[in-house]
Amino acid sequence: MSKQAKIAVLGGGSWATAIVKMLSENLDTIGWYMRSIYAIEHIKRNKHNPSYLSSAELHPKQLNLSEDMNYIVKNYDILIFAIPSAFVNTELEKLTASLKNKIIFSAIKGIVPETGLIVGEHFHQKYNIPFNNIGVITGPCHAEEVAMERLSYLTLACQDQEKATDLSKYISGRYIKTKISDDIIGTEYAAMLKNIYAIAAGIAHGLGYGDNFQAVLMSNGIREMKRFIKKVHKMKRNINNSAYLGDLLVTGYSVFSRNRMFGNMIGKGYTVKSAMLEMSMVAEGYYATKSAFEINQKNGAKTPIIDAVYNVLYGKKEAKDEFLKLTNRLD
Amino acid sequence: MSKQAKIAVLGGGSWATAIVKMLSENLDTIGWYMRSIYAIEHIKRNKHNPSYLSSAELHPKQLNLSEDMNYIVKNYDILIFAIPSAFVNTELEKLTASLKNKIIFSAIKGIVPETGLIVGEHFHQKYNIPFNNIGVITGPCHAEEVAMERLSYLTLACQDQEKATDLSKYISGRYIKTKISDDIIGTEYAAMLKNIYAIAAGIAHGLGYGDNFQAVLMSNGIREMKRFIKKVHKMKRNINNSAYLGDLLVTGYSVFSRNRMFGNMIGKGYTVKSAMLEMSMVAEGYYATKSAFEINQKNGAKTPIIDAVYNVLYGKKEAKDEFLKLTNRLD
Repeated sequence: MSKQAKIAVLGGGSWATAIVKMLSENLDTIGWYMRSIYAIEHIKRNKHNPSYLSSAELHPKQLNLSEDMNYIVKNYDILIFAIPSAFVNTELEKLTASLKNKIIFSAIKGIVPETGLIVGEHFHQKYNIPFNNIGVITGPCHAEEVAMERLSYLTLACQDQEKATDLSKYISGRYIKTKISDDIIGTEYAAMLKNIYAIAAGIAHGLGYGDNFQAVLMSNGIREMKRFIKKVHKMKRNINNSAYLGDLLVTGYSVFSRNRMFGNMIGKGYTVKSAMLEMSMVAEGYYATKSAFEINQKNGAKTPIIDAVYNVLYGKKEAKDEFLKLTNRLD
Repeated sequence: MSKQAKIAVLGGGSWATAIVKMLSENLDTIGWYMRSIYAIEHIKRNKHNPSYLSSAELHPKQLNLSEDMNYIVKNYDILIFAIPSAFVNTELEKLTASLKNKIIFSAIKGIVPETGLIVGEHFHQKYNIPFNNIGVITGPCHAEEVAMERLSYLTLACQDQEKATDLSKYISGRYIKTKISDDIIGTEYAAMLKNIYAIAAGIAHGLGYGDNFQAVLMSNGIREMKRFIKKVHKMKRNINNSAYLGDLLVTGYSVFSRNRMFGNMIGKGYTVKSAMLEMSMVAEGYYATKSAFEINQKNGAKTPIIDAVYNVLYGKKEAKDEFLKLTNRLD
């Protein structure tokens, strides 16, 4: 490849590392911003990210690693943001380089807590990026399985589908297949809402509900997701495509999902605060629940699962009572 | 309840036992046919089915147990068949009592191997039962969770929805919720097709595909199921309702599913024959695969997953090659 695209990944976590691994199969050089100088040095010396997805072998010769976000932004055209949503706003405050004419792909799952916006809208509203230059990379995809080179299907969404197609050439490979979509709003909301349903699945499990109920919960969840997204952004979409239903299932059925784990603790009787302390982190679905509930207050879609999770996490309602009520709203 | 419906269950397995348990919460007396005199005596003496769902406590005083199918058929109005599909035809050969004016509900998941028909159609064609008197009881429901009294949602389908509603009063209870549908064809085909997708999930797992692929497989599976059923019987249905998607998920994600187990052995390199011998039984999805494939030869729905499973089970194709081809037909 003589004229390769100039692509950089921003973020140092598992998902960022997985995306770097995918790109490194196709690109000679990749920009990579991460905060931790220690992690950068470790990668250069040991060819592994020290803290996240350590099993993935990295090739430092291909990597232009930097702890300076502005250096990376200046020198690359396509910027893939994979910073956990809770830190996006703070991280972006460092930004002085212009984002003009940059193509921004968000691989961030969730909502920016400070603005209550999905990441694409956050970039659009706060940084004046036109929607034609904003894209989304979405699963179903556990980063851990990318490290193991297990076949995974990603969806790349952009209003300007040519940009998604261009990027897909550098993402696709032996163990990654890609699908193109023009539904950036829908795929991003799906990626955010699925975390709420994963919390719900965890709560149900913690309360002693079984696999029969879990199947009913997921079946109601995807119908609820469809109603929710339709109110936010009406367009023709097949909610059973991998980017929506597949993404819901890979999270809702994963015992490793942090959102499901968080819900499970709540179901077992932990308070919201003590579950957070115990996990020493905040599950992304926690913020998503508040945002989704508030957005839907205006839109009025029927969302019994989101309502129940909201009442438990923010309304000081007992999970047991709230889920008993929920069982009568499902079918 | 002074005038209770006269309801009998036919079959002695786990699912029959679970349905008897549900009914015994609401009915003073239930007819129950099973082949094994030994099992009948055991239930009378020990209040448990000796071989299936033994953890469920039964109440012999409520049960009119008989090893004579004709006695049961003569004396009850609503007959719930829960005989494994592989034995339905042989069992029904014993039948001399008339089925005229009887209401037949099928709780049988699968296809009658000898006729290649779903059970409702088998009764309709071979016994002249009008479709108005034929119903279907479907999950998502592991019998084991009924024994544990874990909340489960069943769908009762009948063209004459009043009959489904009547029966639902005797099925619903503390841990069973019911939904009424008029789609007997669609719900039965869903219950049959899900076993093929469970075999596919097992094969994929056996071959080393991971959770990311499983989510993509299920997402493609439900879309394929929708296309298949639409060709067989076109009507307005929401394929994401619990009777379709929920049923697919509870089986496709269950590590206890015999169909998934069977597929897993094939994926790990067993021949079809040796997998069957090892399991000392034939997984229902094995017959379903042949029927579904043949039905679809005429209908022409796009069914890459059924095709791949068929080629492995009946076409002597290597699972590894066939699934590699399949991965290119999914998205």
